[in-house]
This record gives sequence, C-alpha cells and structure tokens, in this order.
Amino acid sequence: MDKLKDRIVRDGVAIGTEILKVDTFLNHQIDVDLFEEMGAEFRRRFGDVADRVDKILTVEASGIAVAAFTARAFGGVPVVFAKKEKPSTMDDEYYFSEVMSFTKRKLSAIRVAKKFLSAGDRCLIIDDFLAHGQAALGLLHICGQAGAEVLGCGIVIEKAFQGGGAKLREKGVRVESLAVVASIESGVIHFGDAAAPDAPAPGTPAP
Amino acid sequence: MDKLKDRIVRDGVAIGTEILKVDTFLNHQIDVDLFEEMGAEFRRRFGDVADRVDKILTVEASGIAVAAFTARAFGGVPVVFAKKEKPSTMDDEYYFSEVMSFTKRKLSAIRVAKKFLSAGDRCLIIDDFLAHGQAALGLLHICGQAGAEVLGCGIVIEKAFQGGGAKLREKGVRVESLAVVASIESGVIHFGDAAAPDAPAPGTPAP
Repeated sequence: MDKLKDRIVRDGVAIGTEILKVDTFLNHQIDVDLFEEMGAEFRRRFGDVADRVDKILTVEASGIAVAAFTARAFGGVPVVFAKKEKPSTMDDEYYFSEVMSFTKRKLSAIRVAKKFLSAGDRCLIIDDFLAHGQAALGLLHICGQAGAEVLGCGIVIEKAFQGGGAKLREKGVRVESLAVVASIESGVIHFGDAAAPDAPAPGTPAP
Repeated sequence: MDKLKDRIVRDGVAIGTEILKVDTFLNHQIDVDLFEEMGAEFRRRFGDVADRVDKILTVEASGIAVAAFTARAFGGVPVVFAKKEKPSTMDDEYYFSEVMSFTKRKLSAIRVAKKFLSAGDRCLIIDDFLAHGQAALGLLHICGQAGAEVLGCGIVIEKAFQGGGAKLREKGVRVESLAVVASIESGVIHFGDAAAPDAPAPGTPAP
C-alpha cells in the first residue's frame, strides 16, 4: 500500500536495526483517514473470503482502531480484542495464551472470553505490527482452543526480518501485510516485496 | 441515546451496586455499527464547537475505538490515546498523570508524548466509561500541563453515582454522556436524565 509506505518514509523513525517508530500516525496518535483506507485495503485483499468473515480478532491496545475500521469495511462484523490484563469484571471462562513481548522483554497473557469465540467461527486476525509474531501466534492459539477457523492475518506493518511472518506462513496461515519492511539499516527503512507478501522479501532470513 | 440504553438493558450485566458489564458490545467485543452511531451522536451534541476541535484525546485501551469513530464524525481530526505503559520506543518527553483504577485497585500513570499536545490545541476528551472520573481527570491534568484547551468530555456510559461527572462539572468541564446510569440495584440498571446530562440525575448523590 503505497500511501502507507510513503507515510512510513515521511514520518517513521528507524531506531537501530530493529525498531520502527510510527507513533505519529499508527500507535499513539492515529490518522483516522489513513485507518479507513487501510480497512478498505484489507477488505480488497481478503475480498475472496469477505462474505465468510464472522469476526475480526485483535489484541489491545494499538490493534483496536485498525481492527474496528477493518470490521466496518467488512460490513460491520464484530471486533473482539484480546485483553492483556484480566479485568475485575471478567468472571467468565476465557481462553488464554502466553505472549512474549520482545520490546518490553516480558511474558504476558492475552485472554478472550469463551462466549466471544465459538467452534466454527471464521476469524480474520488484524494487528498493527507483525514482528516476532508473538501476538498473532497467541491469537492463533486461542482460535485453536475455540475450534475457530482463521481465514487470514492482516497486518499493517510486517517487519519481515524478525521472522513472525515466516512462522505464520509455515503454519499455513495466509498473511497480508500492507507494508513489508525487509530491513532497517543506519536509519534507513528498506521495504520488501509487498506485491507478493507470501514470499519472503529479498534479504529476509529464510524460515 | 435510546439505542445505547436499549442495548445496555438488553446486554448489560449489573453486578452488585457498582459494576455494569458491557463487554458484549463495548469493551471486549465491539459493535462497530453502534460505535459509528455513537461517534455521530457526539458530533451532534458538540455541534456548536465542531469546527474548533483539533484533537480527540482518550486513554487506551477501550477508549480507542469510540474515539476513532468520533474523530471520523468530526471530519478526521487526529486521535491521541494516552498510554498506560511506557513503550521502549517512547524516548520523547511526555506529560504524565497518575490515575487510580478503583476496579483494578491500583495506581498507574498515563502518558502523552509532548509532541502530540501543544499549547492552544483544542481537545475533546472521549472515553467509554465515566465512573470516579480518574481517567478523565488525568487527561484534563495532561491538557493543563500542555496548555491545551478542553472543549468538553464525551462519555459513552456515565455512572453518575460514582461522582466522576460531578467532579468534572464542578471544574467547569462540559460533559456529554450518551447514557447516564443513576444507580444499580439488585441487578437492575436505573438511568438518569440523559436529556439534561449537566444536571445530576434524581437519586444521584450531590457533589
């Protein structure tokens, strides 16, 4: 998605070789017009399964807005966002999965109340970043527990060099990333081949 | 907003005298069509200041989606959501405020990077719940530090009996709540006068 890539180049800040900071439009301040276009782009990319999507699944917090605009583009299907903390009101039974955050260097649990995910539900997983793949794998694990089907995984920015995309694709999950970053070097962001997001970008570590 | 109140009656679960659980459509599963209508309703209620709103301010996580749809209704102004954890990439200077969560029984900090809030910015604070008012007061405190102006505070569900709304109105903040809950008794939700949300609902404790 060229508009997104242009925005990443214009406003993104590359830190070291691992971190891409996009807080001006994606995960601290939100550009809702861009989010609306991203939702429409996910709808276009998953057009072949659009009438089968029952739910959009994401993780709080920065996945919520992009999931919500995507749900709107899919005709208003419900969004379910996994919680990182167990709320005091969450007395229901829930599915959970342990997720390692590499940036925060800690293990945490994500939870989805069982009543919001049922056997046979067809889900689209949406998230802002795909790095080491922990959040997406956690959601996949939760869908597995529920017996829900994962139609695919829509990602705003995939950092291909961190291997999460490769892990998901190895498991047979269809991944559509609106921008694929192949590497970050000396403050410069190198994009991979977003036109063929199922193939690793040149220079990406092999699975 | 009758549609929201009907939904609260239909799907909300009252626990004890304090807790209203609305996770089926508001803060775990999201009904995006309802969110879109709530955004439009905030736009209608704040119509007199609509062309002056520079930013929509909220707190992660469950404020994000309602803030995003509200921003869309206000012509796509940016959303800024305060963070509850300091991300590893947040090397910028930031405003912060301490917030007591009564449901989670802990004190936490919320943060907004200084670059996203400037002197003279005219903000609308949007959140899903107004209970004891801690999150909204924290955002107000942050706006004060930045020299930003708060045009008002738009709330999905105000639990008037917990006093947050009274605290904000005492400070001269305009509060518009889409549903005002005056009390919760024996599993029954009693609404206050949403037609005149600036006046305490009958039976609500005086400020």
